Amino acid sequence: MSILSGISICVAFLYNVSMKQSQLFTKTRREAPTDEVSKNAILLTRAGFIHKEMAGVYSLLPLGLRVIKKIENIIREEMNALGAQEIELTTFQSKELWEKTNRWDDKVVDVWYKIRDDDIGLGFTHEEPLTAIAKEYVQSYRDLPFSAYQFQTKFRRELRAKSGILRGREFLMKDLYSFCRTQEEHDKFYNKVKTAYQNIFARTGIGELTYFTEASGGSFGKTSHEFQTLTEAGEDAIYITDEGRKEAINGEMAEKKDGLKKTVEVGNIFPLGTRFSEALGLYFTDENGDKKPVIMGSYGIGLGRLMGTIAEVFGDDKGLIWPEEVAPFKVHLLSLSEGTKKFADEAYDKLTRAGVEVLYDDRDARAGEKFADADLIGIPMRVVVGEKALASGMLEVKSRASGETRELSLKELINELA
Amino acid sequence: MSILSGISICVAFLYNVSMKQSQLFTKTRREAPTDEVSKNAILLTRAGFIHKEMAGVYSLLPLGLRVIKKIENIIREEMNALGAQEIELTTFQSKELWEKTNRWDDKVVDVWYKIRDDDIGLGFTHEEPLTAIAKEYVQSYRDLPFSAYQFQTKFRRELRAKSGILRGREFLMKDLYSFCRTQEEHDKFYNKVKTAYQNIFARTGIGELTYFTEASGGSFGKTSHEFQTLTEAGEDAIYITDEGRKEAINGEMAEKKDGLKKTVEVGNIFPLGTRFSEALGLYFTDENGDKKPVIMGSYGIGLGRLMGTIAEVFGDDKGLIWPEEVAPFKVHLLSLSEGTKKFADEAYDKLTRAGVEVLYDDRDARAGEKFADADLIGIPMRVVVGEKALASGMLEVKSRASGETRELSLKELINELA
Repeated sequence: MSILSGISICVAFLYNVSMKQSQLFTKTRREAPTDEVSKNAILLTRAGFIHKEMAGVYSLLPLGLRVIKKIENIIREEMNALGAQEIELTTFQSKELWEKTNRWDDKVVDVWYKIRDDDIGLGFTHEEPLTAIAKEYVQSYRDLPFSAYQFQTKFRRELRAKSGILRGREFLMKDLYSFCRTQEEHDKFYNKVKTAYQNIFARTGIGELTYFTEASGGSFGKTSHEFQTLTEAGEDAIYITDEGRKEAINGEMAEKKDGLKKTVEVGNIFPLGTRFSEALGLYFTDENGDKKPVIMGSYGIGLGRLMGTIAEVFGDDKGLIWPEEVAPFKVHLLSLSEGTKKFADEAYDKLTRAGVEVLYDDRDARAGEKFADADLIGIPMRVVVGEKALASGMLEVKSRASGETRELSLKELINELA
Repeated sequence: MSILSGISICVAFLYNVSMKQSQLFTKTRREAPTDEVSKNAILLTRAGFIHKEMAGVYSLLPLGLRVIKKIENIIREEMNALGAQEIELTTFQSKELWEKTNRWDDKVVDVWYKIRDDDIGLGFTHEEPLTAIAKEYVQSYRDLPFSAYQFQTKFRRELRAKSGILRGREFLMKDLYSFCRTQEEHDKFYNKVKTAYQNIFARTGIGELTYFTEASGGSFGKTSHEFQTLTEAGEDAIYITDEGRKEAINGEMAEKKDGLKKTVEVGNIFPLGTRFSEALGLYFTDENGDKKPVIMGSYGIGLGRLMGTIAEVFGDDKGLIWPEEVAPFKVHLLSLSEGTKKFADEAYDKLTRAGVEVLYDDRDARAGEKFADADLIGIPMRVVVGEKALASGMLEVKSRASGETRELSLKELINELA
């Protein structure tokens, strides 16, 4: 597991820093979509981040994809730091493989989407195919431990797909799988993943609201763990056992039923034991020549659900509020009139060249419309170039989250951000 | 279209620079898989880049994903330079939408995969959903032109899925769509895409072998254009009309049938005219107040097919040969014995800290096995730490492509690469 973590480079994931709003092909809309009831879907649709194709199925528009890519990169950094190796498994899954673990039959697993006239299912998770791949490469204790992860689209037949992007029928997931020799080795890795997940939720801005929660293991065993985030939109409930350590018990397992808080599950980690390795024949020979089944774990985070949760918990009656690390842009620059355009063009150019990600509202629109759009889109820092800027050179800088307003020169602003 | 192209930053796509081969969970294999006939699938499987799930469906293992991500980033840079906006549409597609363009019926489109007991199809292309999205945002001439692209997995029912990753039933595609006001505006953008594609094929190493080819427009119109790469493994054929300008005519359209060369199609660009905008009602009001249909184009590159083509055209009897910009690592560092390990560890550490991507063969294995693996995996530069390095400090540096061998000190090597 000793990939030189921490030392890393940018492999040409070159992203356009900045963008003029007049060029963005999406627009905000004043009215809530008539077919949505959830706050996250209403705000994200009105602001032009997502487009609904059908219930539980949403396309990502330019602003939405930028948020998802930032979440993806935060997760990738934390996964690489664990020494996990990135892969990409397929959607198409064969009946033959999944019958071996007794997870093909619709009576056993009721979330499968399957292809008409074919024995092909669409992967709703990937324990089976990765265990089958591991079997080709694992023989002895020297081939273990290892872990691998992917960002991959999952498909699940959900009857109650009405929570916007919190519960999708098609959704992007990071799934990590670990393969260890002993229970002790597994437990150690499991705890490292717990810490990585805490880092991910802290960095995406929901750390303070998120609890490490003991839950039932479902079909996999006695217990598993979830990360649950406080929100009235949640379909789960937790009983908080330690506020300081952010620990809780899933409502389904709690003995006390009063004081349960509504939450949404933003991550889960499962000890799989030898459930899949035994069914699919993934064994290794240990130091003593004994044949043993590999001990596995699986660890998931839904990226769309995480974006939806952030929209849900921070959004207010004016719109979205993005935490710094996942915001589509860092600065929303507004030029208020034809007269301020030259100054604003220059500010846009200088900020962009300093590496600051700017969405520049250069449109020929009323100031009130620009202010409303900025609140709706929810970029952390709003910078207004008004008449005052022409006179004194001072820009009005407003925090979307706190509402706090300051006046800064362009130079001071660049120094603060670059 | 004036996103500040050229100015871009790395948005935390932090990739592990380097890796020890002892940690890589895949291994090479000596024997060709019994169920493959194509060179690309045989080499990529033996070297541990891909895993076959079923005919035409391949998972990407760590080395394979690194190549795909490098191809993806080259394409992303060229798309962003065009001013195209990145999005991500969904796999699930509704019957209702596709019936409007008469592309739902299996008798009209025979490549659909459809979900059992549901009116859901798996997208094999995305003209329909993006046109429907554009309709929500386009009213007047001021909302045009724009273009949007995605990296998205497509599903196509292919009967002859026997060319390895050249022809998949599930495959990753970059698809770009353009929306213009006039034929002249469309033609101008179409030509810019042609240049972007030439850049992409040049950067991925197949520029000299790739021809801009006039082809039939299929169901979309009179003509389209393809990018065809010379290879005996190809299922297409072209007649070269201008060797210097790398221009050709698709064999199906050529009048002369002798002198046709076998090729694989690595990209295609289609003028769509108003085929989709009229069917789906995507109109705009021009400067004179007249209502007109939007003029569209679509432009595809299959990323797996491009990786397979590179494997096919450059691979030799010893294994893969990756061009510099798409190689999974830049250097394959080999330590030949227990005695050279300390020197090699230090070289690995220094190269990695200098930002060079190194795969370090630190395994306890015979020198012959390490040489064979290096040839099979095909990293551009092989650096051997043998007994000579201990005595003189000189490393043996060999080019995988040319076979040329040089001796360099570690310092000279770092200066050359960093």
